Amino acid sequence: MTAAKRITGVLAPVVTPFKRDLSPDHDRYVRHCKWLLASGCRGLAVFGTNSEANSLSVEERMTLLETLVQEGVPADRLMPGTGCCALTDSVRLTAHAVALGCAGVLMLPPFYYKGVSDEGLYRNFAEVIERVGDSRLALYLYHIPPVSQVPITLTLIERLLRQFPGAVAGVKDSSGDWNNTKAMLDAFAKSGFDVFAGSEVFLLDNMRNGGKGCITATGNINPGAINAVFEGWRDASADRMQKDITATRNVLQKYPMMAALKAVIAHYARDPEWATLRPPLVELTAAQTKSLMGELEARGFEMPGIVETRPTAIA
Amino acid sequence: MTAAKRITGVLAPVVTPFKRDLSPDHDRYVRHCKWLLASGCRGLAVFGTNSEANSLSVEERMTLLETLVQEGVPADRLMPGTGCCALTDSVRLTAHAVALGCAGVLMLPPFYYKGVSDEGLYRNFAEVIERVGDSRLALYLYHIPPVSQVPITLTLIERLLRQFPGAVAGVKDSSGDWNNTKAMLDAFAKSGFDVFAGSEVFLLDNMRNGGKGCITATGNINPGAINAVFEGWRDASADRMQKDITATRNVLQKYPMMAALKAVIAHYARDPEWATLRPPLVELTAAQTKSLMGELEARGFEMPGIVETRPTAIA
Repeated sequence: MTAAKRITGVLAPVVTPFKRDLSPDHDRYVRHCKWLLASGCRGLAVFGTNSEANSLSVEERMTLLETLVQEGVPADRLMPGTGCCALTDSVRLTAHAVALGCAGVLMLPPFYYKGVSDEGLYRNFAEVIERVGDSRLALYLYHIPPVSQVPITLTLIERLLRQFPGAVAGVKDSSGDWNNTKAMLDAFAKSGFDVFAGSEVFLLDNMRNGGKGCITATGNINPGAINAVFEGWRDASADRMQKDITATRNVLQKYPMMAALKAVIAHYARDPEWATLRPPLVELTAAQTKSLMGELEARGFEMPGIVETRPTAIA
Repeated sequence: MTAAKRITGVLAPVVTPFKRDLSPDHDRYVRHCKWLLASGCRGLAVFGTNSEANSLSVEERMTLLETLVQEGVPADRLMPGTGCCALTDSVRLTAHAVALGCAGVLMLPPFYYKGVSDEGLYRNFAEVIERVGDSRLALYLYHIPPVSQVPITLTLIERLLRQFPGAVAGVKDSSGDWNNTKAMLDAFAKSGFDVFAGSEVFLLDNMRNGGKGCITATGNINPGAINAVFEGWRDASADRMQKDITATRNVLQKYPMMAALKAVIAHYARDPEWATLRPPLVELTAAQTKSLMGELEARGFEMPGIVETRPTAIA
């Protein structure tokens, strides 16, 4: 994969719908993915943190990914999460994604053990790259210390880039710390290392400093407005547009994010079952949902083009 | 499973040997498990933190467990770890362990998401118990906040015990905080809830307060001396023996634990390959190994009866 072909823009870590029995709902999933691509997302970072990916088995992820491709979602728009605690799982998921023709993979470090060394993390990523052994692999490192508790340091990136310049394609920085994103941009953006902000709050800053877009939870519900900042970051209106999407983000951030995203989709799709989450996550309370929707509607928020779920169409 | 039949004593979270290619080594594994049971362990908490269990796929764990039973390790001595991030994986591993006749399962909470609610954790454990749906299930909760970052609170235990008195059998407390272990003992030990200390440092205190033993990393190398405290906790010599095993533990704790345990086994089995770990963990340096072995030998430490690996016997 050459740098010229690489994915850029707004990617959503697609929320994974579950049926009442907590099994993944393929029907709603395909529909939501197609709506996202039609509404501003250039790519889909399926199986991210906000996808409850780590609440899915390896087989459940593989089946969902195959379903998307079979149902006509272009593989070159997909950047599935494939980083697991077990090296063997990471290798299996990554090889599967590459074989399906995915644009890239977004890889968590192994996150069970805390305080591990950069040497150990280097060995983990190196083993995955070598075992997958496919020149099509574009690996994006996933830095999300507030959740994984295992950081991807600049030193580690430098070593991986030096050893695997073809495979190591970029990073998603979900540290929430702009100084860290800026340091990644300053150190590596000119080497063809693509930096994605982990929230649209930093999208304009990221673009102005050589970044390639953002991979953001709220891409699930607000892809059009966020994409407008990506498309128009050089425009005079960029700061105003950024302020608007940040304000919407700030509403969502008052609530548990994954439950909030699903509640919003359930509301606009008129489909209460969309709000289902797998344990250990729980849905919003009725009062939280009411408050969230009230705040969003006060902002004139919409999800244009979302297809209302027809109960008869659901298996 | 009635309380009378429940496992007690010293359990080792058995370290998992890997070949140079990082695949699990069934030969060394069976040999080590049998040595542990012959040397003082009453049970084997396979697939614990110190087993690098979360560095193994679900299939690798299932195959290893089946191998142990096939090779004659009694299933009623086994308490495999079966708690994963994904509910479906936890259900699969737990049902598999129960079907094999294991004494119990030691279950981590789902550990990817941080700051989750007791309600969400309750739903996770309740779903596992209900989906496994087998009266033979004895579930031990695994409290290890320094690693999992997701605690098992007293409130959660109380709710699970009330709802599932037959299935919820006890806890391993690896908080490292005796006050927490004591609080668990005071609240639940009289209800037939079996508290295991997560380190032999607390073994004597645990026994004196109604606990049932310990599940401890150093059980992998020092099972005889630790078992002597368990067997003799009412004896006049108990405090002296406790002091001795604590001193040995304190030597090990100066080093990364899993690497240190494997280095010690490699030394006494004259089998350097035993020291192999899966990323993200790394083996001790030569200097660390030399220092560790020097300290242990100065204490007169031995692993009596350990079988030296014969290179010709290794596949």
